Amino acid sequence: MSKVAIIMGSTSDLPVMQDAIDILKGFDIEVDVDIVSAHRTPEKLFDFSKNARINGYSVIIAGAGGAAHLPGMVASLSPLPVIGVPVKSSNSIDGWDSVLSILQMPGGVPVATVALNGAKNAGILAAQIIATADTCVLDKVILYKEGLKQKVLKGAEEVKKK
Amino acid sequence: MSKVAIIMGSTSDLPVMQDAIDILKGFDIEVDVDIVSAHRTPEKLFDFSKNARINGYSVIIAGAGGAAHLPGMVASLSPLPVIGVPVKSSNSIDGWDSVLSILQMPGGVPVATVALNGAKNAGILAAQIIATADTCVLDKVILYKEGLKQKVLKGAEEVKKK
Amino acid sequence: MSKVAIIMGSTSDLPVMQDAIDILKGFDIEVDVDIVSAHRTPEKLFDFSKNARINGYSVIIAGAGGAAHLPGMVASLSPLPVIGVPVKSSNSIDGWDSVLSILQMPGGVPVATVALNGAKNAGILAAQIIATADTCVLDKVILYKEGLKQKVLKGAEEVKKK
Amino acid sequence: MSKVAIIMGSTSDLPVMQDAIDILKGFDIEVDVDIVSAHRTPEKLFDFSKNARINGYSVIIAGAGGAAHLPGMVASLSPLPVIGVPVKSSNSIDGWDSVLSILQMPGGVPVATVALNGAKNAGILAAQIIATADTCVLDKVILYKEGLKQKVLKGAEEVKKK
Amino acid sequence: MSKVAIIMGSTSDLPVMQDAIDILKGFDIEVDVDIVSAHRTPEKLFDFSKNARINGYSVIIAGAGGAAHLPGMVASLSPLPVIGVPVKSSNSIDGWDSVLSILQMPGGVPVATVALNGAKNAGILAAQIIATADTCVLDKVILYKEGLKQKVLKGAEEVKKK
Amino acid sequence: MSKVAIIMGSTSDLPVMQDAIDILKGFDIEVDVDIVSAHRTPEKLFDFSKNARINGYSVIIAGAGGAAHLPGMVASLSPLPVIGVPVKSSNSIDGWDSVLSILQMPGGVPVATVALNGAKNAGILAAQIIATADTCVLDKVILYKEGLKQKVLKGAEEVKKK
Amino acid sequence: MSKVAIIMGSTSDLPVMQDAIDILKGFDIEVDVDIVSAHRTPEKLFDFSKNARINGYSVIIAGAGGAAHLPGMVASLSPLPVIGVPVKSSNSIDGWDSVLSILQMPGGVPVATVALNGAKNAGILAAQIIATADTCVLDKVILYKEGLKQKVLKGAEEVKKK
Amino acid sequence: MSKVAIIMGSTSDLPVMQDAIDILKGFDIEVDVDIVSAHRTPEKLFDFSKNARINGYSVIIAGAGGAAHLPGMVASLSPLPVIGVPVKSSNSIDGWDSVLSILQMPGGVPVATVALNGAKNAGILAAQIIATADTCVLDKVILYKEGLKQKVLKGAEEVKKK
Repeated sequence: MSKVAIIMGSTSDLPVMQDAIDILKGFDIEVDVDIVSAHRTPEKLFDFSKNARINGYSVIIAGAGGAAHLPGMVASLSPLPVIGVPVKSSNSIDGWDSVLSILQMPGGVPVATVALNGAKNAGILAAQIIATADTCVLDKVILYKEGLKQKVLKGAEEVKKK
Repeated sequence: MSKVAIIMGSTSDLPVMQDAIDILKGFDIEVDVDIVSAHRTPEKLFDFSKNARINGYSVIIAGAGGAAHLPGMVASLSPLPVIGVPVKSSNSIDGWDSVLSILQMPGGVPVATVALNGAKNAGILAAQIIATADTCVLDKVILYKEGLKQKVLKGAEEVKKK
Repeated sequence: MSKVAIIMGSTSDLPVMQDAIDILKGFDIEVDVDIVSAHRTPEKLFDFSKNARINGYSVIIAGAGGAAHLPGMVASLSPLPVIGVPVKSSNSIDGWDSVLSILQMPGGVPVATVALNGAKNAGILAAQIIATADTCVLDKVILYKEGLKQKVLKGAEEVKKK
Repeated sequence: MSKVAIIMGSTSDLPVMQDAIDILKGFDIEVDVDIVSAHRTPEKLFDFSKNARINGYSVIIAGAGGAAHLPGMVASLSPLPVIGVPVKSSNSIDGWDSVLSILQMPGGVPVATVALNGAKNAGILAAQIIATADTCVLDKVILYKEGLKQKVLKGAEEVKKK
Repeated sequence: MSKVAIIMGSTSDLPVMQDAIDILKGFDIEVDVDIVSAHRTPEKLFDFSKNARINGYSVIIAGAGGAAHLPGMVASLSPLPVIGVPVKSSNSIDGWDSVLSILQMPGGVPVATVALNGAKNAGILAAQIIATADTCVLDKVILYKEGLKQKVLKGAEEVKKK
Repeated sequence: MSKVAIIMGSTSDLPVMQDAIDILKGFDIEVDVDIVSAHRTPEKLFDFSKNARINGYSVIIAGAGGAAHLPGMVASLSPLPVIGVPVKSSNSIDGWDSVLSILQMPGGVPVATVALNGAKNAGILAAQIIATADTCVLDKVILYKEGLKQKVLKGAEEVKKK
Repeated sequence: MSKVAIIMGSTSDLPVMQDAIDILKGFDIEVDVDIVSAHRTPEKLFDFSKNARINGYSVIIAGAGGAAHLPGMVASLSPLPVIGVPVKSSNSIDGWDSVLSILQMPGGVPVATVALNGAKNAGILAAQIIATADTCVLDKVILYKEGLKQKVLKGAEEVKKK
Repeated sequence: MSKVAIIMGSTSDLPVMQDAIDILKGFDIEVDVDIVSAHRTPEKLFDFSKNARINGYSVIIAGAGGAAHLPGMVASLSPLPVIGVPVKSSNSIDGWDSVLSILQMPGGVPVATVALNGAKNAGILAAQIIATADTCVLDKVILYKEGLKQKVLKGAEEVKKK
């Protein structure tokens, strides 16, 4: 069964990254969560990335703020698809730093970047990737999107009543 | 066998998007290429997206410039993973418009965004997604990354000789 | 008599969009309000847009935040003039994302974009469009602008008294 | 019959603004073209704007670059709908100056802003506004959009043949 | 004796613009304060600007937010030096709109722009302009700058004591 | 008689700054031109600034690119009004660096900033400052602005003929 | 023994700059702290910079906000390595002004720029510079980095326990 | 004797980085040049960084473009001072990506960032760092800065002659 690694550069990223954990657990997908700092624990970054495939992960979600090097370095060290979550940290220049540090990867080493603080979407994207080979997860993704739709339609009804 | 759809908003996007086609063909992954304009052929966008899964695609790569709505609308209509390529079109405001139009998707509907004009990386990412369930493709991805490394090392030798 | 549709991507956009509702009601122009999410209810988006003219609307006001695709997609599906309101949502990158996603439409499919959170101006613009063929509304627009002037002049008097 | 005024701040804006002239002529809508500089001919700006309605215009299209005050000042002086075209002039800071000077109008005085150098869309938008009360023009707009679609579909066929 | 006009687009700009009033009063320079909205009271803008020289002003300070057209339009209508103060209004896009709308004036019509919310500096600059022909004001400017220096030096002493 | 100092950080700024020289010579105002680099000739910067008033200058125009410290440092060292011209140098980040380095001066030390590469406007502004106490120069400024108007009106006639 | 000068443009920068003081004291490196304003105390700036080497400093850390000229001017006047800390002051345009004013120095006069409000890193960098010739300090830097690592690893353990 | 390592992410960065090589050779400082790609040769990055001190380097200069992770990762793995050069690569978003990816390092791991494409300044900064413990290099730095001054003064003479 597929398993997703959710890593982040600092415990301060956890409130943002929790959305990815929750959504994947909601899809009954196994997740492992860890703190891996590209800049403060580079050896752990190497070990984690080099062994991610052997350790059974299908997808890696990596969140970081500022000069966010974690997603790109994991992508450099592992052949697995890496989803990057730009986190708007304190002292960030409005989030532009983490967005550009994750998005603008050079040719050859992609990071699948989602919106600023978009950890929920990182989780859904991981599920969609797993769903390419797992119709059970695919059904859950389809159901989830149907739920989004129903929620909007219900909200629309309430707005119209006013 | 896995198949990737590569669509773009305009024939003028083809020179940029060709990189995605080439890299996937290099991985022996089947690709279908089409022009689908969110703004000029919305019905085709709906038909394409609604049927993408049934038509056997595993991953969709969508490239567009300016107020780039194609990747996000495909993601809204299909449960498949969608990779978005921001294209720097003429009259673009330095590419910021396509980057932000593709990246900043709302919670619930992710687009896996790559760098501005990063179609090559979109292709590699598609291969990595397919590789999560296809060790043959995985081996090719690993080989490709090894090739990148050798090319850099060779370049380094030449620089050192000078 | 002319009628304006005011739609928005989420109920969370209502506090901003309320300004458009209020100003049009102040001009005695009929408005219908609905939640239509490009990304979560794309079928509703299609139905709404395809039928907007038949349903008797003269103008459509569409507000959305982040990667705001709603105004542009409505403009793609309806020949009516579409006014786009960029909404500064939470997790927005300072509003740049919604501004650029709405403003930078490709040649052929215009969206009449107003300022960030500028729903009031969207309402006035809708009235001005209706007024091109309705002198009664035109008179109200002229009266409204006269009111703005008087308010500034009165404020000026108070400042001078200090 | 409806008539559109197309004004611009400088003769150097004409190559960009020509697209608006051409598209409106293609819709058989009468256009008058003039140079009106907010900063160098402010009296002409006042005369033009104050008399625009009396002179029979339905819509005003105003293009300008840099600190582009023309569209906003016309909107301040006339109750007609004003469409603003940000022009990317030399010495512009990447077009941001004209975009923000036109878009960010205060509450009460809207300018319908189109994309940077988006004069073609200004013309189409003017036609759509006229079409709210002129089904003949509406039919032409619908036909024009159908033409856009056919052109994309034809381009798609050619791409598929390769 | 020299006199400075301090105008602003809205009473909401007064808290920012008060700094200009205070500094000039501190230099014993006569100031007249008024609200003149380029977009809501364009006739007043014309009258004010056309008569500013006759009314005895030496310098005009104009503050405005968003698509700030007031300073530039006054500069277009009067030969007096105009100092522009970009005000960071609510719904501003981080102040960029007012900064660029005031700074990026076309060749021929300068506005002396100061920092975002920099009304104090606008007042000092007005005094410096008056001081070019009034040694009494010049002495006050020199004294003021000496005061700034002493304040910093005193602050430095306190920091060193810690 | 009034005299203007035009200084710039590098000989490479001369092509841009020449506009200021030309316009002031056209107004028969005496100008002295010098290269003063804040970063490479700081002692000359001090000497120049400290003596500018004694040397008979009424206004100082200072142009610089990148991290442009010249205008601000001159303003720090002289009580004269200083006009800053942000120059778009090579390796500039689109001109933003010089614009912000000159514009965003702290409270107490203003620099009258003009548009990016706006040396012509710096010259006109200097003339306007001199004109506050010299009606002969004022007449020339008024005549110059009248000339601008006539040029636009003539251009308008030519556009209308087409 | 090596000594570091930590200067800043205003006492209001002290809360940010305190991080540099603390970290260097933690490394047992002597620091002198002073307020030196490029714009309000330029003579002190000159004296400080000209004498910094003679006064025994090895490295200078200079923090400033807005149009931050302090680090660059010190670098212009002293051959010592200067570390610049962009401070996000009130009325700053999101910190871009201080970042670009410090970073974009012209060829010949470098400032070693750290992140917005990154005074802690300025302190560490100063220590690293001293450590190039002082193995005792080098050992402390290595120990400090080891401490960072342990803190992350401990945080990771706690996250895993949850 | 001190030795500087100059590394860059790609051979395409060499034309920019050559300035650092040239300036250091001009100071008679030994330099080793190598290509080390954070994303394509991560193992080499680790080996290089881990051994940089043992291999006798005093300072490391690292240049990279786009999502530039090289300087930050070297800084994470070595206690030596690391100077980062943001390179404006093709497909860069105007250089903002490399600037922010290098500048905005988290607390604990500084990179001494210089201007966009500012390799010359990186070289001078490296010399200044070495000069903190080597008066011979210090003399050369002082002489170099004196040369800059003379060149400006000579240029000033030529401008004045015209």
